[in-house]
Amino acid sequence: MARPRIPEVAVRRLPVYLRVLNEVRAADVDVVSSAELARRTGFSSEQIRKDLAYFGAFGTRGVGYDTGLLSDRLSQILGLDKGVKVAVVGAGNLGTALARYNIQRHPDVQIAAVFDSDWDKIGKKIEDIEISPMEDLREIVSERGIKMAIIAVPGPAARKVAEQLVDAGIEAILNFSPAKIDLDKPVFVQNIDLSIELQSLAYYVSDGNRRNRNGS
Amino acid sequence: MARPRIPEVAVRRLPVYLRVLNEVRAADVDVVSSAELARRTGFSSEQIRKDLAYFGAFGTRGVGYDTGLLSDRLSQILGLDKGVKVAVVGAGNLGTALARYNIQRHPDVQIAAVFDSDWDKIGKKIEDIEISPMEDLREIVSERGIKMAIIAVPGPAARKVAEQLVDAGIEAILNFSPAKIDLDKPVFVQNIDLSIELQSLAYYVSDGNRRNRNGS
Repeated sequence: MARPRIPEVAVRRLPVYLRVLNEVRAADVDVVSSAELARRTGFSSEQIRKDLAYFGAFGTRGVGYDTGLLSDRLSQILGLDKGVKVAVVGAGNLGTALARYNIQRHPDVQIAAVFDSDWDKIGKKIEDIEISPMEDLREIVSERGIKMAIIAVPGPAARKVAEQLVDAGIEAILNFSPAKIDLDKPVFVQNIDLSIELQSLAYYVSDGNRRNRNGS
Repeated sequence: MARPRIPEVAVRRLPVYLRVLNEVRAADVDVVSSAELARRTGFSSEQIRKDLAYFGAFGTRGVGYDTGLLSDRLSQILGLDKGVKVAVVGAGNLGTALARYNIQRHPDVQIAAVFDSDWDKIGKKIEDIEISPMEDLREIVSERGIKMAIIAVPGPAARKVAEQLVDAGIEAILNFSPAKIDLDKPVFVQNIDLSIELQSLAYYVSDGNRRNRNGS
């Protein structure tokens, strides 16, 4: 069945809808309005109706969306219903934090391997997962059916790691290294730049903008 | 001077423009077109012209923007020209990674203190910064002129930490804990949810969407 391609900005909102729907569902609420979804997500009702219409989820006018149907559909659209396996490359502070964080919380996106190039770390464990050498990347990715990876290595090493990941069969990468990765290969790369977050946050403490926010 | 309030989505793009402008400036390029900014940032030319017009930066038609003027103006708008001091709360793997990452890279957003509630960590150092007890939060924030904070504590502790930060005078918070923080107080909170990033990334590896992306 052909489906419309969902814009990247909308894809990034889908997990937020999913989380809210799961909260609502857990409270035994069968139907939820776009207004309620708006209140809980912070997005506008119009935005929500437009996003959900991309994949054929139309609420009943004046009533709302079927909570169970919609959350199942979102899980399926995101590919989370079958579970997605993720590799973390880089077992430093950040990689360890990301692996721990996720292992404890999300069975639908499961950390299935951790890699490092430092032989002092190899063989040690993060929670239950043994740190493997980069030399075993291709074999482990293939054996365990891993399709996604998180890069948590220093900037200068990131691009080479990304290329190794793609060669090993990885289809989507979340890049936490300071280096922006832009590969000319069939892979989806999401760069997470922590300094961008901090710099934009600074806007909200600079004196001029605060005065301005108060309308003076 | 009254300035228009810049929408949050546009504020988040400003540091990206700033980075690109600084790259261009470092290469001794005095004027940059919105088309070139578009190529380097991935945003559309129309988006860029609209964003920059919010704070009165108008390029010369057919020529472009003055690189030096525009980057200085962006630094000023973001409050980065004076430097912004940040506290990190939580000296676990994530807090340590965030503090290290930033200390090494960004003098304009400077980690000026790290706090933890675990007395085994207090007194130890991350790079040159000593980990301080939460009891000293208010005093240190005031003394060092800290206005921003990063929360990197476990979910259940996050809300209380956020309230302590606001009471100590913090005006903007970047929250990396899994708990969404929504305070009824005059503070700007940006929640960074790593599992949302992973879940939306999963969209790009699920088989149905990949087929669809190839047009079949």
